[in-house]
Amino acid sequence: EEQLQAMIPQGHRDYVEAVLGRYGVPQLAADAESPMSLLGWVPGKARNSVDVALEHPIRLLVNALGPPPPDVTEKAHAHGVLVAALVGSAAQARKQREAGVDIIVASGTEAGGHTGDIATMVLVPEVVAAVGGAPVLAAGGIGSGKQAAAALALGADGIWTGSIWLTVKESDSSEALINKMLRATSSDTVRSRSMTGKPARQLRTPWTEAWDGADSPGTLPMPLQFMLTADAQARMHRAALATPEAPAAELVTTPVGQIVGSMNSVRSARDVIFDIVTEFTETAARLSALGSG
Amino acid sequence: EEQLQAMIPQGHRDYVEAVLGRYGVPQLAADAESPMSLLGWVPGKARNSVDVALEHPIRLLVNALGPPPPDVTEKAHAHGVLVAALVGSAAQARKQREAGVDIIVASGTEAGGHTGDIATMVLVPEVVAAVGGAPVLAAGGIGSGKQAAAALALGADGIWTGSIWLTVKESDSSEALINKMLRATSSDTVRSRSMTGKPARQLRTPWTEAWDGADSPGTLPMPLQFMLTADAQARMHRAALATPEAPAAELVTTPVGQIVGSMNSVRSARDVIFDIVTEFTETAARLSALGSG
Repeated sequence: EEQLQAMIPQGHRDYVEAVLGRYGVPQLAADAESPMSLLGWVPGKARNSVDVALEHPIRLLVNALGPPPPDVTEKAHAHGVLVAALVGSAAQARKQREAGVDIIVASGTEAGGHTGDIATMVLVPEVVAAVGGAPVLAAGGIGSGKQAAAALALGADGIWTGSIWLTVKESDSSEALINKMLRATSSDTVRSRSMTGKPARQLRTPWTEAWDGADSPGTLPMPLQFMLTADAQARMHRAALATPEAPAAELVTTPVGQIVGSMNSVRSARDVIFDIVTEFTETAARLSALGSG
Repeated sequence: EEQLQAMIPQGHRDYVEAVLGRYGVPQLAADAESPMSLLGWVPGKARNSVDVALEHPIRLLVNALGPPPPDVTEKAHAHGVLVAALVGSAAQARKQREAGVDIIVASGTEAGGHTGDIATMVLVPEVVAAVGGAPVLAAGGIGSGKQAAAALALGADGIWTGSIWLTVKESDSSEALINKMLRATSSDTVRSRSMTGKPARQLRTPWTEAWDGADSPGTLPMPLQFMLTADAQARMHRAALATPEAPAAELVTTPVGQIVGSMNSVRSARDVIFDIVTEFTETAARLSALGSG
């Protein structure tokens, strides 16, 4: 990890402080503890997480950003745990299946977080055709019963939802972020490399724009970009939390998909599920009438 | 039009010739007639096209790139012709309705040609909700009965297809382009401003890449970019047509959506329609069973 830290150019560190400075975010105290967590993006970290997960009564282990190593899949299977993986193309789906992954999550460009550029409407039928009968869940752009019905019409065996849970009553997102999401339209997200070095869809803010701007030094490859910016993310959130009207609140962003445009009120998780199921049933009946009409 | 021509920087003209030169496309003869057609992108041109269209027994007039002027809509209505418009956001849909447009075509980012960045899965429900009962057709990512069923599940009243017709037996696309489309995957398109100055999805080629490259002078605003490059497009097509193995063949591109990845054989238009209808009916029955199961 120290070797990786040494690979981050000083110019990039200076740029981060320059952007934060413009929005009144305090400098990191020299003795502050870094809140950075490298998740599974550097060797060693992912296997620890898998071991911890398998000590609990889980049913499914899901990964993204590439096929898991064979020993991880074998270990999961030995524990009776199925392995799923998020993919953005039919070619990635085939690679995951070759690596022993049980369930493929076809995640369209409209999804929040790391995402490719192929839309769910096109991706799902291609992935279903590519994996020869393996179960496929559709992800990206799905937060209602109509969208769930569309996903199943495309050939998916089920749906995988993410963004829709960020604004429920039970969400642990900060109030500042929840209010931002409630106000956002589907045009207010952007696929940006600013968070991790790989394209991840998130709310567009002056922070994401700063990395696309003319004076941007460019983003670093994963995991360096995350190492460079994780502290900055934590500091802008702290500054925004301390003073909601502070300029720092403008900077805070979160991974979220294009359905953020229809996330306009805080509902309970129970109501979200109920609405999806009810609307799905109505939609299936409506299509049935059209199909036989 | 001469005034517009004068607004094109010489550096941009030189860049076009430099890229074409790398691929062996001959210079434009000084006395050659320009094949350029500005369509409706400059004042005066669009109204002429409307007048010609209304002299024929047409049922529908469809426009893109912004609401039609009131007199055009009124003239169409006076002829008993309905007016439709392509939109990429709910806000655009509301503007079109305020301008008197009858039918809204909600066109997702996966569509070919001019397109926004919101995917069909997200866009269609938003547009349906925004236009309060006006008919909505779904476009973008639709070339099969499954995709048609998904579009109707999302709330569309019908579908609007484009790309799927580019590789049918009856297509007037060149053989070089048809072969390129048959080979392309859904990752082989790009939203590029290189054709018209506004983002239009098309096959990614060294030509589109040249406009995103480090030495690109940047694209010009509509209609200047089209005026700058229309001759170049015609010349690279002629060079590719004359010698299919010529490097110029690499340059030729065409507007097409992400479903190009599933356009892998030449079928008759009749078979395409039959397949869509058959698969739609099967899909509706399958969903009906799920909805009541």
